[in-house]
Parts: sequence; C-alpha cells; structure tokens
Amino acid sequence: MSINSAFYQILEGVTAGDLAGAIGAAELHGPAKTVIADITAFETATPSALIYQSNPDAAKTLTVKPVIVITNDACLPMIDGGNSALIVPSPRIGFAQALSHLILPPPMEFDSTGISPLANIASGAHINPSATIMAQANVGAGTVVEAGAVLHRGVTIGENCYIGSNSVISHCMIGNAVTIDAGCVIGAAGFGFEMTKDGAVKLPHLGLVIIDDFVSIGSGCAIDRGSLGNTVIGAHVMMDNLCHIAHNVTIGQRSIVAGQCGISGSVTVGAGVSMGGQVGIAPHVTIGDGAVLTARSGVTKDVAAGEQVAGFPAVPKRQFWRDQAAIRRLGAAKTSKP
Amino acid sequence: MSINSAFYQILEGVTAGDLAGAIGAAELHGPAKTVIADITAFETATPSALIYQSNPDAAKTLTVKPVIVITNDACLPMIDGGNSALIVPSPRIGFAQALSHLILPPPMEFDSTGISPLANIASGAHINPSATIMAQANVGAGTVVEAGAVLHRGVTIGENCYIGSNSVISHCMIGNAVTIDAGCVIGAAGFGFEMTKDGAVKLPHLGLVIIDDFVSIGSGCAIDRGSLGNTVIGAHVMMDNLCHIAHNVTIGQRSIVAGQCGISGSVTVGAGVSMGGQVGIAPHVTIGDGAVLTARSGVTKDVAAGEQVAGFPAVPKRQFWRDQAAIRRLGAAKTSKP
Amino acid sequence: MSINSAFYQILEGVTAGDLAGAIGAAELHGPAKTVIADITAFETATPSALIYQSNPDAAKTLTVKPVIVITNDACLPMIDGGNSALIVPSPRIGFAQALSHLILPPPMEFDSTGISPLANIASGAHINPSATIMAQANVGAGTVVEAGAVLHRGVTIGENCYIGSNSVISHCMIGNAVTIDAGCVIGAAGFGFEMTKDGAVKLPHLGLVIIDDFVSIGSGCAIDRGSLGNTVIGAHVMMDNLCHIAHNVTIGQRSIVAGQCGISGSVTVGAGVSMGGQVGIAPHVTIGDGAVLTARSGVTKDVAAGEQVAGFPAVPKRQFWRDQAAIRRLGAAKTSKP
Repeated sequence: MSINSAFYQILEGVTAGDLAGAIGAAELHGPAKTVIADITAFETATPSALIYQSNPDAAKTLTVKPVIVITNDACLPMIDGGNSALIVPSPRIGFAQALSHLILPPPMEFDSTGISPLANIASGAHINPSATIMAQANVGAGTVVEAGAVLHRGVTIGENCYIGSNSVISHCMIGNAVTIDAGCVIGAAGFGFEMTKDGAVKLPHLGLVIIDDFVSIGSGCAIDRGSLGNTVIGAHVMMDNLCHIAHNVTIGQRSIVAGQCGISGSVTVGAGVSMGGQVGIAPHVTIGDGAVLTARSGVTKDVAAGEQVAGFPAVPKRQFWRDQAAIRRLGAAKTSKP
Repeated sequence: MSINSAFYQILEGVTAGDLAGAIGAAELHGPAKTVIADITAFETATPSALIYQSNPDAAKTLTVKPVIVITNDACLPMIDGGNSALIVPSPRIGFAQALSHLILPPPMEFDSTGISPLANIASGAHINPSATIMAQANVGAGTVVEAGAVLHRGVTIGENCYIGSNSVISHCMIGNAVTIDAGCVIGAAGFGFEMTKDGAVKLPHLGLVIIDDFVSIGSGCAIDRGSLGNTVIGAHVMMDNLCHIAHNVTIGQRSIVAGQCGISGSVTVGAGVSMGGQVGIAPHVTIGDGAVLTARSGVTKDVAAGEQVAGFPAVPKRQFWRDQAAIRRLGAAKTSKP
Repeated sequence: MSINSAFYQILEGVTAGDLAGAIGAAELHGPAKTVIADITAFETATPSALIYQSNPDAAKTLTVKPVIVITNDACLPMIDGGNSALIVPSPRIGFAQALSHLILPPPMEFDSTGISPLANIASGAHINPSATIMAQANVGAGTVVEAGAVLHRGVTIGENCYIGSNSVISHCMIGNAVTIDAGCVIGAAGFGFEMTKDGAVKLPHLGLVIIDDFVSIGSGCAIDRGSLGNTVIGAHVMMDNLCHIAHNVTIGQRSIVAGQCGISGSVTVGAGVSMGGQVGIAPHVTIGDGAVLTARSGVTKDVAAGEQVAGFPAVPKRQFWRDQAAIRRLGAAKTSKP
C-alpha cells in the first residue's frame, strides 16, 4: 500500500542518512545512501520504502530489501545488512517524526471561495454555489453537492452521488451512486498518537477512505482515513446516523450498520454483517461474513461467520439470554429468602 | 396521513395500470383505470391512495376503497375487488419502485447563493448572510438563523426560533420559540431499505419532521423524517447533544432526552418521559407517560406509564439493582471457595 | 469565577430592589440599594455578586457580603442581614429569570459575510474565505481556519491551531497548537433547565469553554460551555470523534477520551486518565488521576486514582471479569439441570 501522491507528497531525494540526522537516530546500520521513495506499513513494504518495527519476532519476517526501517536495538540482529536500520528509543515515535519531516505540507489554496478553477467538475453535476470544492477535486456527472458541503483537495466523487449539506470530505475516493447525508466528516485523521511524559506525539495519517458504489451513509457520521493503508467501505453498505468508523476499518459489502455504532481502529467486518444500534467493536477484531451483532453489543473478540452475539462483553445470543434468565432467577431467589 | 405537496409532488394522472407496467407487476386485479391521487401508510389509507401490504391478516382489515395496493398472492383473496391489486414478489420493494416512479425529483435551484428570492422571510427575522435559505422556505419574525445554516426548500420555521450555525433543516415544520443548536441535521431520510442479493433497495421517505413550540435540540443531533407519516417532537421537549432520532418516532410533550440517546424507528415516547444519557430504544417500542429510563438503558420492550427501568435489556429499576447485588454476591462467593 | 465581559454584558446599575421587582420576588430582605456587579456560583461568590441557593445547609456556609441572593423561606434565617435576600418559590427558576433580565442580548452583527473587519486576525493565519469570523474574535499566527468554520463573537484561538471545516466555535478560549477536527460544536449552552408544569425554563449559560495547549479534538464532538464557571480541557488531552462533553466538565492534562464517550455535567476527570470508546460518566462524578475506564464503562460514582473499572454500573475491572465468569457458570449450570 503506497502513499497516494494525489493526496500526499514525499520530499524527494531524502536518504537514510539524511533521515537519521533529521530524527536524531542514535545509530544507522547498513547503507546511508538509499533514497526513500515511499512509506508503507511493515507488512506491505516494497523496495526503497520507509517502515518501522519494534517487535523482534515481526522483524524476523522482513524479506523485502532494500528498505529503510526505523527500529530498536532488539530488532537490529533480525534485519538484513542490505537494509538501512535507524535505531531510536521508540520506533513508533521515530516514525511519526520521520513522517513530519518527509511529508510536504499541503498547499494552502485559500485565495478563492466556492469552486476552485482547478477542480474537475463533470458537466451534469449539480453543485450548490455555497459549496466549497478545492483544487484537484473530481466530481462525476449526475452528482449533487449540497449547500455548505466541503470537498477538500484531491478527493474523487463518482457519478450520481449525493453529498449532503455541510458534509466535509477529504482524503477520500468515492464510487458511483453513493449517498453521504448531511453533516458527515469523511477522511479526517484517525486517533493515533503516543502519549509521552512530555505530552502526545501524533502519528501522521497518510491513508485514504475508499467508499465503493451504492453505499449510503447517514447524517453526522465520522469516518476516519487510514494511517498507512485505507479505511474501506464496501459496495451497498448501509450506515445510519452518527456512526464512528475509525482508521483502517474495512466493512464488507452489503453490511448494515445501525445508528450510533462505533467501530474501532483496524477492525475487519465481513460481508452481509448486520449491526443493531449503539454497537461497539474493539480494535483489531474480525467479524465474519453474515454475523449478527445485536443492538448495544460490545464486541471484544472475533465473531465467526454467521454467528449472532449480544451484550457486553458480547457472547453468543443464545448464551446471553440464558445468562439473563439465570440472573433474574438468582435475583428473585435472594430477595425471597426468609 | 397524506403526502405534503409543499415538499413532495406526485406525478399526475398515473393509473393502476400504468403503475403495474412501470414496476413490472406480474398481475393486476381489479380496476386498471383508478388514478393514484395520494400515497399513504396502509393504516391511514384514503380513497385513491397507493398503499402496500404483504401480510394477509393485515390485508383483511382494509375497508377503504378504491385504493391501489401493491401486494402478493397470499393477500390477494383478502382484497375487495373494487380495489386495484398489483401482485409482486416483494410488496415493500415494489412500493419503493413505485415511489421512485411517482414522486417527482425536487427542482434543482442551485443558481443563487444565500437567501433565495423565493423564500419567505418575515421582517424582524435575523439571517446571517452566510446562511443558505432555499425557495419556498418560511422564516418567522424574531427568528435567528446563524452562519452556515441551511434551510432547504419548503421548510417552515416559526417565530422567535434559533437555528444554530451549520445546522441543516429539510422536510421540516418547526413551531415557535424552538432552539436548534449548531451542527444538527433535521429532516434527512430515515434508515429504510430492503437488502436483496443484488444490494440495497432504498425506500423513499415522504414524511416530515414536525417540531412543536418551545422545543430545544442540542448540538449535533440527527432527527430523521418519517417514511410515510411524520416524526413528531412535542412541545417543550428538551434534547441534549448528539442524539439520534429515527424516522416516525413520536416524543410527547415535556419529555427530556439526555445526551447521545438513540431512538429507533417508529418508537412512541409519551409525555413527561425522562431519559438519561446514552439510552437506546428498539424499534416500535412504546414508552408510557412519565416513565424514567435510567442512563444507558437499552429498552427492548414497552415500558408502562410511570415505570422506571435500567440496564440492558432494560428491567424495572428495583429489579436491576437487586440483580446487580446478586451478581456481586455470586462473584464474591465463587472467588472465596477453597 | 466572574462573568467574562468579552462574551457577556451585565445590565448596569440594577439594584436588589430593581431585580426583586423584575422577577416578582415575594419578599426582599436586607438592603434594596445594593447594585449587582457580577453573577457567580454560590461557592465562588464575591461582594456585589448575584447568587442563588435553595438548601439551608449550604446557605449557612455563606461568608461573603454584601451579596444579592435569590433564595427561599427555608434559607432566609441562615443569611446575614447585610445581604439582600430575594424570596421566591424556586430559587433556580428565579435565578434563570434574573439572568434573562440582567444579561444583555449579544449584538446582532449579521451585516457582513466572511471575516468581520472587527475581528483580530494575526498576520500568518490562514483563513479560508468561506469561513465566518465574527467581531472581536481573535486568531493567532500560523492558525488554519478551514472552509465553512464559524468563529463566533469574542472567541480566542491561539497560534498554530487547526480549526476543521464547518466546525462552530463560540464562547471559547483556545490555547496554542490545538486541533479541532471538522464538524465540531464547541461552546454551545449546556443542558440546564427546570421542567415545570408550564414547560421548561432554561437556565442561561454564562461560562466558557477553555481549551489548553496541544489538545486534539476529533470530528463531530460537542463540548458545551459552563453555566457559571467554565468547561476546561487540559493540555495534551486527546479526544476522538463524536464525544459529548457537558457543561462545567474538567478534563485533566494528557487524558485520553476515545470515540463516542459522553461526560455529564460537572464531572471532574483527573490527569492521565484513559477512557475507552462509548464510556459514559454520570453527573458530578470525580475520576482520579491515571484511572482507566474500560470501553463502554458506565461510571455512576467516583473512581480512585489509578483504579481500573469496567461495565455498567462500572466496578473494578477484576471484579467485572470475576462476575462475568460467575454469570457464565450460573447460566451453564441452570441449562444443564435435568
């Protein structure tokens, strides 16, 4: 998963040695002259990419080279000498610092209101004149952009979409026939940081939100973009109001997400999943195809395909109701004691 | 409950026979020439209205005629021969298709920013010049419309109201002395669709949101309009931030809805009801007058007038605390076993 | 805690006697000529301030004088004769009426779009021309204000901040290097009212929101201002999307608030506290430094420093899991009975 250059520009020509200096790395092992050409997740590294790793067991699995890896003493023995290894106390913080150095700030193009002359608006799109559409944004034929909506730099909206009033879309690629109701925020940075004794170090988010065809998003939803890699909403997903979808979530096609659900970072939801209202899912959990998460489920671990769960912590639905019955009997028994 | 023609226009002169062709009905029984004059819920049908029904027991109860009913083979024997019966595999999907055919798309009037010359603004209303007010919208004397607020076509706002910055109001009739805080979305389509193997078929929403006098709505709330019929917020209702009110909900006067509550479709809340924060109510539930829903209650069935409930699934409050005490004792006992 | 005159103006020269007439007080005891110079909470009263009190035990503790106190017959004997005591049936409603009388309505300055010539924008601030910035608002150097954002009268934004698209900021003072993502509402009035048989009497909110340096607020959050006194967000607080922070909440520095949390009025959260997603905290609760509130905790009473809690009602985390295990055993046992 590479950085998308329509949204993020990497400073050109920075070498491993340059970066070691910029982030104050204690040591640099391996070649100093390798030029950084991309930034990826560890798992999706490509040659000349910058990555980071703090876990020696994971570091062992690295096979691509040459890469530039921000890492620590524990990982160093696992890393092939053909790679450039920058040693820092906290690789995650070092990576955040590296990104701040490598990613160019987006151009400020606040000299015009309304539709930028550098935006690409198909004929047959309907744009309310009080909308704001920034440079390099793309809007397809038949798409409606309502009053006060803001399309940030570089976003792509397909054909026959509807973008509701005062919705804000950034760092996002949207297919055809997608509805985004009013007041949504799509594509903001996710909730990623390291809290240190000196305060929070925020991790730059370099991914996108990808929304496939025929998706419908209710009012007031917030869908964050990926940190590295993308947040992905599959075709025909139906989402109700005020849902919170964190960075790097994937939701499979035809899944249903009722009102006020919250899906934490890096959750994978299969196809045809059904969630009732106010469900919450913990980070990194996987929900199998066709699973049913009853309203108000708090899901803390993986749910198998087709499984139905309820409660917090969520358990199989049958067990939830059995437990509820047992609690009722127990409460009644204690009360009726002489 | 008829379609409100200030918001929705029905294509004129469409007959039962025309519609059967348009939606590909397998059969048409009864008169083909009846002209469709209105669209209603089954329960509120009037002569010449289009309705739908898939349940034979309900179909039996139909007494009005002539109506045009989209239905199935099972219901057909229950339907009086004076009515036009269009037979389809899924009446609900057939109805959605019929509505797409019958309801004219709203006019696109994106040729002006700010206040449309076709809006009706009382003298003595205070409109921030960065607000957007579309044609046929009505704003009463003494009402304040803040920066970035969007009043869509046809909405009515009474006197001495306050519409906060960047709130979006559509398909809505608001009384006097109502406060809508910033960032709300009032009147969007509800969460109604049929998921088929080919994806979602969305049900057009032809109702409104009706907000009575002296209501106060907090920041960032989303209140959906009715599908057929209206979503109704009674006089003096006080609602806190980030609440989700689904289509066709009714909330009685002087009820209190604390922050982040979610009320599902077709719920009826009585008068003087009090809800703590983060309460959820399942679809079609009825809450009696003066009931108290403790914070974080997840209400799955009807609550009687004056009753106090807590927990998920919500039970009478006394029982909830009794059960909690029993769980504590049980947990402690198991732990202290030798 | 005095009224901040950059945001609220008190009608000058109003005496205790004038006010007694204006709110229809049954009796006035003590001096009628004392001029009201400020409005404060009872606990932070200063000479010549207007306060209210309905609890005789609290009334006993009043030592400052002269003050003007809206109170009832029960409290009257506790109040020093040097103070002006206005006797009403409901002191809280009387206070609300007094505030409506004493606080001047904010000037309507809707004669310009965009940036008011009376706003103070530092050179080096980046303001999207579709933003609205009202009179007496202050924006520091290096701060970005995105499209459609609205800065209301008198707010102060420090240096190097980021105010996301369509966010609404009022009654607020923000430090340096603060990020407010898109679609937030900061500084609206809190959820305070008295419900009477004639409907709701809303309590005017005269406080602010104070946000310290390096805070990050996610998309779609709603943070209400204080009623009397302020809502305070400490330095380096990280808050995720769609959180609801009620009036007069204090959050200590470096605390972490995950998505969709709801913090009720007058809650005090210490420093370095960590909250998972969808946590709720009941009014007036105190959370000690370094406490951990597991995702979906519903906290109904104080949590000690460093304590970890879970569930609803929230209990120590170890106890929560012990209880869950006991419930599972109980449910299984009942089911396996012959």
